[in-house]
Amino acid sequence: MAQDPKSKNITWSDGDVNHAARVQRNGHKAAILWFTGLSGSGKSTLAMAVEKELFLRRCHTYILDGDNVRFGLNRDLGFSPEDRTENIRRIGEVANLMMDSGTICLTAFISPYRVDRQGSREIAKNGSFIEVFTKCSLEECERRDPKGLYKKARAGEIPQFTGISAPYEEPENAEIVVETDKFNVEECAQQVVDYLIEQKILEVNGI
Amino acid sequence: MAQDPKSKNITWSDGDVNHAARVQRNGHKAAILWFTGLSGSGKSTLAMAVEKELFLRRCHTYILDGDNVRFGLNRDLGFSPEDRTENIRRIGEVANLMMDSGTICLTAFISPYRVDRQGSREIAKNGSFIEVFTKCSLEECERRDPKGLYKKARAGEIPQFTGISAPYEEPENAEIVVETDKFNVEECAQQVVDYLIEQKILEVNGI
Repeated sequence: MAQDPKSKNITWSDGDVNHAARVQRNGHKAAILWFTGLSGSGKSTLAMAVEKELFLRRCHTYILDGDNVRFGLNRDLGFSPEDRTENIRRIGEVANLMMDSGTICLTAFISPYRVDRQGSREIAKNGSFIEVFTKCSLEECERRDPKGLYKKARAGEIPQFTGISAPYEEPENAEIVVETDKFNVEECAQQVVDYLIEQKILEVNGI
Repeated sequence: MAQDPKSKNITWSDGDVNHAARVQRNGHKAAILWFTGLSGSGKSTLAMAVEKELFLRRCHTYILDGDNVRFGLNRDLGFSPEDRTENIRRIGEVANLMMDSGTICLTAFISPYRVDRQGSREIAKNGSFIEVFTKCSLEECERRDPKGLYKKARAGEIPQFTGISAPYEEPENAEIVVETDKFNVEECAQQVVDYLIEQKILEVNGI
C-alpha cells in the first residue's frame, strides 16, 4: 500500500508538485543519459547495464529505445534525413518530460547527426544532459552485427544505413566516451556510473 | 544520497528492470488518468489537486498538459481535426511510456473526439487507462472563461474552438464523471482518489 499521507516520512507539505519536490523525494537528481553510436556499438546493452546498477541504487530510471519508440510514438517516421531529425526531436522532448518528472532517462538511438543531438541538449531543462558516445570501430560493429543489419545493408537491402550508406557524425564534446571495443559491458557501465557519482547526480544536495 | 545498492532494503536482485519491478519498488500501480472536457471545465485544476494528494501518498506522478506538450513535443501541430488527432495520439503514446516507467500519468487535454480518446485507451498497456470526464455545462465554462478564450472565440478571433465552432463529443463510458459545476475541487479530487483506492491502484498486491 502506498504510504498514508498522514504518516511521518513527509518533507513536502504544500505547494505544487514540481521538479524540486520530486528530486527531493527521489533522493537523486534527474538527468538524460543520451547514448549515441553506430548500430552494434552497444548503446542498448550498455543502457540496460547502467539502468540495472541505478535501479539497485534505488534511482528512478527509464530507457527510451527503438523498441518502445519506433513502434509507438514515432511509427509515422522513416529513415530519411528529415524523419531522422524529427525522430530525434521527439525523443529529446520525451526525454525532457521524463527528466522533468524526476527520472534519469536513458536514450539509446544511433542519433547520427550532431545538430540533432545538439537540439536535444538544448531542449533539456531542469537537469543534466549527458552525451555518452559508445565508441566502436565500424569493423567491430560489422563483425558483431547482432541483428544482421550490416549484412543486409552491404547487400543493398537497407537503404540509408548509418556507417554504410548514411553518415555518422562522431560527438566532439561528449561528456562520456566509452570504448566498447576495448572494455567489457561491466567496465563501461561502471565508467558511466562513476561519472554520475562524480557529478553528484546520485545525491540531492547541491541542486 | 541515493541508497547504496548493498544496503538492506533491496527486494529486486537480478533480471531486467521491467514494469513489474518498478511497480514493486514504487508501492503502487501505474495508471493513466485521462482528463477530458471543455475548456474551463477544470481539467488542469483537478489534475493538479489529484496529483498533490497522490504525491502526499508517495506516489510517482506526472501531469501532461498544454504547457509542457503544446510548446514542446507537439509544437508542430495546430488545431485542425487532423492535427488534434495527431496531438492526442502522441500524448497517448507518451502517457503510455510514462505509465510503463511506473508513473501515474495525468493528462489534461480537451481531447474532444471520442475515437481519439479510444485510440489512447488502446495504446495503454501495462496498467489502467482511466477516463475522467470533467462534466460542466458550456454556460458555466463560458462564465468562468479563465483564459478569456470563449470571449475571443465568440468574437471569431479563435477558429475551431471546442464547444463554440468545433465539436466536443462527451464520453459515453468514462470510468469517472466529475461534475465540476456542482462540486468543488477538493470534492472532485477526492472522488478520483477514492476511485483509485477502490481499484487498488494505490497498492501493489493483486497485480
